[in-house]
Amino acid sequence: MEYSALSELLRVTANSEIISLAGGLPAPESFPLKIIKELNDLVLKKYEGASLQYGPTDGAKILKEEIAIWLGERNIKTTADNIGVTSGSQGALDTIGRIFIDEGDSIAVESPTYIGAVDAFTPYGPSYEEIKTDDDGAIPESLEKILKTKKVKFVYLVPTFQNPTGRTITWERRKQIAEIIKKYDTLLIEDDPYNSLRYCGKAVDPIQTMIQENTVYLCTFSKVLAPGLRIGFYSAPKNIAALMVSAKQSVDLHTNSYGQYLAAEYLKTGYLKKHLPKILKIYKSKQEAMLKALEKYFPKSFQWTRPEGGMFIWATGPKHFDAIDLYWKAIKNNVAFVPGTYFFAKLGEGKNTFRLNFTNVGEKQIKIAIKKLSEIIKKT
Amino acid sequence: MEYSALSELLRVTANSEIISLAGGLPAPESFPLKIIKELNDLVLKKYEGASLQYGPTDGAKILKEEIAIWLGERNIKTTADNIGVTSGSQGALDTIGRIFIDEGDSIAVESPTYIGAVDAFTPYGPSYEEIKTDDDGAIPESLEKILKTKKVKFVYLVPTFQNPTGRTITWERRKQIAEIIKKYDTLLIEDDPYNSLRYCGKAVDPIQTMIQENTVYLCTFSKVLAPGLRIGFYSAPKNIAALMVSAKQSVDLHTNSYGQYLAAEYLKTGYLKKHLPKILKIYKSKQEAMLKALEKYFPKSFQWTRPEGGMFIWATGPKHFDAIDLYWKAIKNNVAFVPGTYFFAKLGEGKNTFRLNFTNVGEKQIKIAIKKLSEIIKKT
Repeated sequence: MEYSALSELLRVTANSEIISLAGGLPAPESFPLKIIKELNDLVLKKYEGASLQYGPTDGAKILKEEIAIWLGERNIKTTADNIGVTSGSQGALDTIGRIFIDEGDSIAVESPTYIGAVDAFTPYGPSYEEIKTDDDGAIPESLEKILKTKKVKFVYLVPTFQNPTGRTITWERRKQIAEIIKKYDTLLIEDDPYNSLRYCGKAVDPIQTMIQENTVYLCTFSKVLAPGLRIGFYSAPKNIAALMVSAKQSVDLHTNSYGQYLAAEYLKTGYLKKHLPKILKIYKSKQEAMLKALEKYFPKSFQWTRPEGGMFIWATGPKHFDAIDLYWKAIKNNVAFVPGTYFFAKLGEGKNTFRLNFTNVGEKQIKIAIKKLSEIIKKT
Repeated sequence: MEYSALSELLRVTANSEIISLAGGLPAPESFPLKIIKELNDLVLKKYEGASLQYGPTDGAKILKEEIAIWLGERNIKTTADNIGVTSGSQGALDTIGRIFIDEGDSIAVESPTYIGAVDAFTPYGPSYEEIKTDDDGAIPESLEKILKTKKVKFVYLVPTFQNPTGRTITWERRKQIAEIIKKYDTLLIEDDPYNSLRYCGKAVDPIQTMIQENTVYLCTFSKVLAPGLRIGFYSAPKNIAALMVSAKQSVDLHTNSYGQYLAAEYLKTGYLKKHLPKILKIYKSKQEAMLKALEKYFPKSFQWTRPEGGMFIWATGPKHFDAIDLYWKAIKNNVAFVPGTYFFAKLGEGKNTFRLNFTNVGEKQIKIAIKKLSEIIKKT
């Protein structure tokens, strides 16, 4: 699998001297430690043993109810009965692969796409159809061209602040995509982990809001609370939700109860709304630092995205630029990032691209890293 | 799947008027709430953001080191590098199914066996070979008979206080089984979740201690700390451990970090050793209450196991007794248990058997439930 090759490649970044723009990790200083301390006491007092006991496979009722309210705020129509809690979004992606993909089935993904999803789907043996993308995200005509000739089991998109590009599919395109999904009566997997991480501009409603019955919508607490709790969730039509629960049961019985009650109270107490602005402030500033450094140091022959949120910037070099070559030279200079080719479902694409994460290191380090990268590029 | 039928059957037990001897839940009063409160503060103070951040797929280093020490106390030779942390034991069982079972492969399991394991393995399409059992656990000659004629991918056993029977494989038999596993060069999956729950008698070393290179040993914090944290683990030969990690990555990235640090500190601070006697005291007394009630009320034509630990007693009625019929009559009288036939990998066996859990309800309720069951049996 490509993901293993990538893991191997990234192993060197564990060296603490390296400034890593490679991962997709939240800033540890963004975690609400004080709030979690308070919620720990609240959860143990309020739920006692229930917070530590085996729980239902679809998730704790109170968390599902709170999630339904939260999703309502982004205009998603759902109820607790449509929602399931998973062991991170990855748990949902694996379950989706397990129930929908039979060996040889086609699925459609963006080009480039989120590699963790490819890693979740690939063991079930799909063949990938790639949807072309540009600065406005996935191109509807490219999707329709695929669906016209192929029956796909589902279309997998990360429409908002996509990983790896940071791009957001425009509202116009979302409407077109919704129509296409409906017209060809297929299923959309809308993976939306970065929805809350908007630093400027106006929110765009999820595609789910237009085609509720054709969408499994995924989100997570990893970017707004803490990824280490491994609390992801989905909202799905009830028949699909039932399949998801049944498939999840044999994999892990249920998602950890304690983390679920913490997440439920993080919503219920209003702490998420109180804390989120702090996260946004930290990331906005880091993103600005990276964009400024790119502007200042990078050669004019390079392009990069300027997302209104999320965790990543996507850079594209001239046609024959080799990002893997840059990677190994950068490592020698104690800077890491991810060569973009690893984000394509089909091998060999995007060799001149790379992904830069701006959330996990300090602003000074971001500047140093971008400067070093540009120096290496200019020397090559 | 049988497990779904069983879930359906057990749904009625959610009614709070029902005394349920059906589940396999620890007693909520056995959870160390005060200790967890203390460890919460300790973990946040000591590990800060790291306890909430993404972590390695194989588990937090400190937890793996503490587990290696803990397992050493039961004479298991292992190191942190052989250990992986999973989302409950179920997570390990699913991973084992994923890496070892190809459609049509044979695997050998006890008759009866742990139904959660069957549920984890079945999606990968194995065919089951059943090892005969008696009061001393799995019968070595029956295992050898299978291995003589069939190549099995692995042998799955719960040797100590087995779920569902409560039986423990004797040391003599363990030695024979170890020799057979080695002779036929197959793999043992030794699932040992109840190891610490011994109320009397002398500990028997795991089979792993004799055939380390042929064993994946599974255990969990579910019975000694709290199941809701979903922290299971395995010790495996390094080549297998590497396969397990790679397969787990696509399923859930890693097990929740926060729970892992809680579990690590539960071991490191010595709290497990301090708290375990309290758990044993609660369960021993409940088990005695159940055995006493069975002795007093049950007809002489019934037999049941008298385990030295664990969570279950296994009852066997006369040849033509129908435990599913008893189940529905019992439900009408607000008592639940699990008909034994659901614990057999092959359909239709064990119709005259049933499993009684004694850990999750009070002693008075145990007595009432057993009395009611015997009254129904006598009326039938």
